[in-house]
Amino acid sequence: MSLDAVLAQIDKDLPAAAERLLDLLRIKSISTDPAFKSDCDAAADWLVADLQGLGIDAQKRPTPGRPMVVGHVGPENGKPHLLFYGHYDVQPVDPLNLWDRDPFDPAIEETEAGTVIRGRGAADDKGQLMTFVEAFRAWKEVNGEWPCRITFFFEGEEESGSPSLVPFMEEHAEELRADFAMICDTGMFQSRTPAITTMLRGLLGEELTITAPSKDLHSGMFGGIAMNPVRVLSRIIAALHDDQGRITVPGFYDGVPELSDELEAQWQGLAFDHAGFLGDVGLSQPAGEQDRTPLEMIWSRPTCEVNGIGGGYQGDGFKTVLPSQASAKISFRLVGDQDPLLIRENFRKMVEDMLPVDCTVEWKGHGASRASGTATDDPAFAKALKALSDEWNVPAAYIGCGGSIPIAGHFHSILGTPPMLIGFGKDDDQIHSPNEKYDMESFHKGIRSWARILDALT
Amino acid sequence: MSLDAVLAQIDKDLPAAAERLLDLLRIKSISTDPAFKSDCDAAADWLVADLQGLGIDAQKRPTPGRPMVVGHVGPENGKPHLLFYGHYDVQPVDPLNLWDRDPFDPAIEETEAGTVIRGRGAADDKGQLMTFVEAFRAWKEVNGEWPCRITFFFEGEEESGSPSLVPFMEEHAEELRADFAMICDTGMFQSRTPAITTMLRGLLGEELTITAPSKDLHSGMFGGIAMNPVRVLSRIIAALHDDQGRITVPGFYDGVPELSDELEAQWQGLAFDHAGFLGDVGLSQPAGEQDRTPLEMIWSRPTCEVNGIGGGYQGDGFKTVLPSQASAKISFRLVGDQDPLLIRENFRKMVEDMLPVDCTVEWKGHGASRASGTATDDPAFAKALKALSDEWNVPAAYIGCGGSIPIAGHFHSILGTPPMLIGFGKDDDQIHSPNEKYDMESFHKGIRSWARILDALT
Repeated sequence: MSLDAVLAQIDKDLPAAAERLLDLLRIKSISTDPAFKSDCDAAADWLVADLQGLGIDAQKRPTPGRPMVVGHVGPENGKPHLLFYGHYDVQPVDPLNLWDRDPFDPAIEETEAGTVIRGRGAADDKGQLMTFVEAFRAWKEVNGEWPCRITFFFEGEEESGSPSLVPFMEEHAEELRADFAMICDTGMFQSRTPAITTMLRGLLGEELTITAPSKDLHSGMFGGIAMNPVRVLSRIIAALHDDQGRITVPGFYDGVPELSDELEAQWQGLAFDHAGFLGDVGLSQPAGEQDRTPLEMIWSRPTCEVNGIGGGYQGDGFKTVLPSQASAKISFRLVGDQDPLLIRENFRKMVEDMLPVDCTVEWKGHGASRASGTATDDPAFAKALKALSDEWNVPAAYIGCGGSIPIAGHFHSILGTPPMLIGFGKDDDQIHSPNEKYDMESFHKGIRSWARILDALT
Repeated sequence: MSLDAVLAQIDKDLPAAAERLLDLLRIKSISTDPAFKSDCDAAADWLVADLQGLGIDAQKRPTPGRPMVVGHVGPENGKPHLLFYGHYDVQPVDPLNLWDRDPFDPAIEETEAGTVIRGRGAADDKGQLMTFVEAFRAWKEVNGEWPCRITFFFEGEEESGSPSLVPFMEEHAEELRADFAMICDTGMFQSRTPAITTMLRGLLGEELTITAPSKDLHSGMFGGIAMNPVRVLSRIIAALHDDQGRITVPGFYDGVPELSDELEAQWQGLAFDHAGFLGDVGLSQPAGEQDRTPLEMIWSRPTCEVNGIGGGYQGDGFKTVLPSQASAKISFRLVGDQDPLLIRENFRKMVEDMLPVDCTVEWKGHGASRASGTATDDPAFAKALKALSDEWNVPAAYIGCGGSIPIAGHFHSILGTPPMLIGFGKDDDQIHSPNEKYDMESFHKGIRSWARILDALT
């Protein structure tokens, strides 16, 4: 009956757990912007202190970038050694004017759709990460002891490409190796069905700056004779997709697998409501490869998206400038055996081949990770799936995810530890966007889910 | 011998004249940005006070936007009534990091190419405008009286489309009508040959914002299925020119005249050094219509340029956002009888026809003026040309100008006053760009040129 007692303790402690999460959300731990370096340190310190308060041997561990938080506790008792991974860093908050509140002054809000925790990082990933911590807090409170060997591993660079992660994992492989790596950075299927994510896209990030004239010019004086870098960049971006939505980078589709019949059947069974998925964001038509299903577009097909573009005068009013430079940030989501470094090479060559005379391009690479898939043969997966189904009263599913969680692949390749990706994010959480939120239901039932999984696996 | 005395007085007073210009340059009179409204007022006040100090009946005159400065002086004595037009507002200063000094902390600098006055507005148009004022100051000092009826008319919205200009000219037509309108907002030919500009391109400014999803999305979650507005905008911009550099807006070339044989011969005689013109800004090849000469590209052919583009994340690092919106500022330079309002209509329709499903476009118009040409039959033009030739020891030329000076057309159409466009800007003045400058030679000989012209016309 100890599980029931733990679940009751979770229910009782929920208001205090939410307050702790709000505390963590107040820390402006944006990793991509150097101006927030000390805030990242503060978030790591906060977590170390919280874990130590539970009797866990936790430390802030330095890296060349933002620090890691590593904690160990519990006996080596023949039960599986479980590692819990999350990240305490968050995305930038612009455009700030689209937020209904200060992104770092989080609050619990009552909405028509229920109670939500509003603020940057509420869902991605501080709220999810705290579902682990709160589950263990309740477990410890009720049982006074730990069910197995447990390792916590929280990073602070997930939103900026995790540059320190692989070196840290390689250097500390012995310490971090476990039987399963529980990763909480994923969501439910269609906001309703709990899920274990077994298919993740990889990510290649590229930033290019095209220079044409050596300085900004007057478009009256030089317009019509001087090459305009915005025109050049626009032509390149326009050429990246053909009329059918296929990506035109040479060799791009090498290593992209077709869906297995089995997975195709399972996905058809999920009855994905793509009209609702798109309708929630003001769209009606899937804009990807026209011969693919919507679920394929977001889970199993590679993509190329422009994440940002800029050049010339963007302020109020008008300025008749012919700009010297134009820049774009472009990312590719990768699947199957696509090779990010080869795609980078082919993409850069394609762009360089398109440059008119007098134009130059400067490159900055932002991360390059392969796609990853997880085998679900180990009985632990079926046990976790059942625990999720019990908590949510809906059969849980194995699903894909359009996003990239490179850590999942790293656990497998560097440590030999199979990742198990379980999270409680919902489609409307607005992660990476203004007004990010995490449903109180996700937080509460997420904590309860981890208690059930812990019970099922030990 | 009074002209020689005036020229001598100009030479003697040059250091003080330069100090006065530096004073005016310190005022941050950026008209396009509402944050600098009071600075524009301060610049108008400065000019009113300076003119009043010369005994001119000058006033700051309100408009719905930035104020006008109007001043009258001198007898109606049968000599031509001359109006002098300039503008005291300046362009924004970004990108600020490319300036070698604070744009509003101007200075006189010694460079390899000679002495320059450095700062925003030095050439466009405060320095040019003060060449008038200083010529009159010297004239008054030497002669104690004015040679003819003189009107000063300085506006503060030229860099933001002159929204108040036409209504003001219409309301005060009686007061502003003169025999010639001297406009100082132009340059020399190839930085060496003084010139009267007789051919000006018109300008149509358009700003468009494309919205695809209703909010910023996560490019992992929605990439590949949601329409990306940067892609849409890039396709539109890429489609605005064909491979030969011709503009593809339907009907765009209606009303574009071919060069007369006479003008073609005159322009060939100018021996335009396009390699040097482009080389100064890091380019080698004319990028416009491939079947046109470089002088045609900048003086007599219409253009379409992107002046600014923006969308998604543009900060440091990377953010995997799929943006909701992307915007561009696009301007067209017009020639001959091209109709700006018809082109606006055709351009907007072309863009709207290119929009994929689920995308919307919002428009903002920024000015729409026709091209203008000036007849040079009146003997005053030949007299002014000779005065310029005398001052610069080079035969002065009638030339075209790629930029747009809508006021020139307005003087003609609203007041029946023929404009005479004479200025001393040089190609390397970097107007609208970082490190704008005005050569001390332009300032000094510009003042002297006006004294000669005043002498020749009265």
